[in-house]
Amino acid sequence: MLGQTLEPVQISDFWAAERQLRTVFPPSPLLSISPLDQKLGYPVYLKAESLLPSAAYKFRGATNKITTLMKEHGKDIRIVTASSGNHGMACALAANRLGIQAAVVVPVPTPQMKKDAIRALGADLLEIGETYDESFIAACELAEKEGRFYVHPVADRYTVAGQGTITLEILQQLPDVEQVIVPLGGGGLITGISFAMKQLRPSVKIVGVMPEGSAVYYHSRKAGKLLTLDKCASIADACVRKTGEEYLFPYIEANVDDIVTVTEDSIRQAVKTACLYGKLTLEGAAAMPLASLLEGKCQPCANTVLICSGGNIDQTVLEDCLKA
Amino acid sequence: MLGQTLEPVQISDFWAAERQLRTVFPPSPLLSISPLDQKLGYPVYLKAESLLPSAAYKFRGATNKITTLMKEHGKDIRIVTASSGNHGMACALAANRLGIQAAVVVPVPTPQMKKDAIRALGADLLEIGETYDESFIAACELAEKEGRFYVHPVADRYTVAGQGTITLEILQQLPDVEQVIVPLGGGGLITGISFAMKQLRPSVKIVGVMPEGSAVYYHSRKAGKLLTLDKCASIADACVRKTGEEYLFPYIEANVDDIVTVTEDSIRQAVKTACLYGKLTLEGAAAMPLASLLEGKCQPCANTVLICSGGNIDQTVLEDCLKA
Repeated sequence: MLGQTLEPVQISDFWAAERQLRTVFPPSPLLSISPLDQKLGYPVYLKAESLLPSAAYKFRGATNKITTLMKEHGKDIRIVTASSGNHGMACALAANRLGIQAAVVVPVPTPQMKKDAIRALGADLLEIGETYDESFIAACELAEKEGRFYVHPVADRYTVAGQGTITLEILQQLPDVEQVIVPLGGGGLITGISFAMKQLRPSVKIVGVMPEGSAVYYHSRKAGKLLTLDKCASIADACVRKTGEEYLFPYIEANVDDIVTVTEDSIRQAVKTACLYGKLTLEGAAAMPLASLLEGKCQPCANTVLICSGGNIDQTVLEDCLKA
Repeated sequence: MLGQTLEPVQISDFWAAERQLRTVFPPSPLLSISPLDQKLGYPVYLKAESLLPSAAYKFRGATNKITTLMKEHGKDIRIVTASSGNHGMACALAANRLGIQAAVVVPVPTPQMKKDAIRALGADLLEIGETYDESFIAACELAEKEGRFYVHPVADRYTVAGQGTITLEILQQLPDVEQVIVPLGGGGLITGISFAMKQLRPSVKIVGVMPEGSAVYYHSRKAGKLLTLDKCASIADACVRKTGEEYLFPYIEANVDDIVTVTEDSIRQAVKTACLYGKLTLEGAAAMPLASLLEGKCQPCANTVLICSGGNIDQTVLEDCLKA
């Protein structure tokens, strides 16, 4: 597809990505919050991707991919993507900041607030299809028809390298890191983080956390091949998908030490705990690493980092979690 | 009182404080969050003191004061303070990190959670008196009797210098800052921030925000002298007090450009807006700068920084604010 790069990721891609991102936004904070440590009974560090400009880590990959496209094809390029969620917002914001034109295709049933947010950032919003798959096809057609570059949400060398800049920041912020616990959905985030970490500090344990109601990479690892689920559902909406990415699966199998699942109940508990004790508004997916500790699926060690991937949670869902 | 230093603050105190703090914790993040900017219709920067280790800016002053006492009197000193809130937590945590013994006197009616938190940090917890004033007298007696150094929550040269390190960080993080909006309660925070800013970058406007139900410095400025209120109350509990500090009032009059008040309703709205759009859990006092914008009491300019002073809000209060 026009724009997508499925060549193997190189470690040099991560350094290049970090240089590109640093001209647009500073590193996300790595937080040590005493009330949370007290609540848990042991210390953890929170890598607060929810506090990036788009309120999610997706801004890294989108910024790196678009910057790379601009270097290769000039400053007059136009991009297109399909996403009703954090990736759409991230692309619209990155295009806005980098001064290029973006189109975002969303399914018709997307919440009005998200549509308004994408429009407010100056992107063309196209409402096509009832599901993500239909929007995706429409976006591909638009790319072809208008000569736009498609910015894939997860399966792309430069998107992966952008997400993996998190590892470079962690190694600067906490050189003694021993374990990183990462939300796992489409796989782009954990591929970037784990590839960079296993190249630079292979002793650091990388754990992926999936919602038990949508755990395709967990089941695929057991089966030894990428599966497609019959159904999937979770409060961690950013991680809900029936299948994984062929491009990413070998990376995940090579570099992720362990994949665990968490229940919906513990995700709700984790959103509440993050809000009241960690002082962060986290969406369900972003609270899964904390959920894995609360549920005993992961064990804390001296220097454990939880990747808090995003903060875009609806008010009704947050209020529901606070009752957990 | 043993330990309190009421000499005039010097600009060199701030540089010394920053050097001391940097051995204990990193700068707090200065955040630019697109969903919040969109909600407001203009950009703001959030200085997230709620994400310091004690979840409030008080950790700065406590750490600087205790470190200074240790330099002057050795590493075997013991400290005491009276506080049921953020200052008590900050002293207990700073003493813990710096390896000295702390006693914290709290009024008997203090919530159990706060008592547990102070104890968990290794401080001696003494429950004496029904009000802060009674706890304060008991803490002074304890200082005298046991040769402990008293760490005053606001009126102290080194506490003020600690809080004012926020200005040094802002000038590094956002050199083009034009306006800083600061919660105003006891006065220690705004004295530190405004003194340093008017020395280093006098063109930057400093605005203090008080809850209209507890606005002693606002009324005192109008009266031309420090007043004592008959009564005071607000959801912004960290800013509720009947009178101000004689030591700080002249600094505030000299260096704070404007003092405004906000309603309880707009504080609730601001806590909600910070949580849903700014992705931060803020206590009432910390949301007052945002409230001043929502209410139109302050005007935004190109580079406005809101000091988000702390994140220690009770669950019931937060849930109440989310209904605003």
